[in-house]
Amino acid sequence: MPDETVLRTMLFDFYGELLTEKQREYFDLHYNDDLSLSEIAETEGISRQAVWDIIRRAEASLREIERKTGLVRRYGAQRETVAAIEARLKRLESETDGETRALAREIAALTQELKG
Amino acid sequence: MPDETVLRTMLFDFYGELLTEKQREYFDLHYNDDLSLSEIAETEGISRQAVWDIIRRAEASLREIERKTGLVRRYGAQRETVAAIEARLKRLESETDGETRALAREIAALTQELKG
Repeated sequence: MPDETVLRTMLFDFYGELLTEKQREYFDLHYNDDLSLSEIAETEGISRQAVWDIIRRAEASLREIERKTGLVRRYGAQRETVAAIEARLKRLESETDGETRALAREIAALTQELKG
Repeated sequence: MPDETVLRTMLFDFYGELLTEKQREYFDLHYNDDLSLSEIAETEGISRQAVWDIIRRAEASLREIERKTGLVRRYGAQRETVAAIEARLKRLESETDGETRALAREIAALTQELKG
């Protein structure tokens, strides 16, 4: 399981567009742009508590979507599988046979795409 | 782009849990269990039109989630990449070198996991 910060970033990356505009905006400012609640509150002309309520609801919403769909968890498992594939490709790329090396490199390049 | 039936199945697989219970149930009965609107209507004791309205809204909802997140599209692209990897693995598995074949088979087994 990724740590909380990584998980939060992934949840936002996957499902952020499903939030309301305000939820997405405040969540992004706070967690991705590292603005404090007070800074957001001041810019928006609302209370610090109101900002926090919106961000808290945004995060609850993201976690609820993940609980229902499990797509971030599925993606995390894929990343682990890709890492295991890469470890084996490294060994193939060190083989002496030229064609084997070439194929291993092609597969490694394709594997990169899976991490996108 | 997958055909409409495949796409609908994937949308339901990815996002079905985000629908309301009724939407999920009728969508599933109609598209996955192949029950007609009339059959569902009779069992539920509501009109054929009411059943259709719920299924139509369910599908609109699934498509809207996909429009916003693009996760099914991303998954489709991954499947194409995995197919390209598999084609190259087949060539490696036909190599004469025993270690190369063994590694290629391990990678092929891991690649299967990516299709889950």
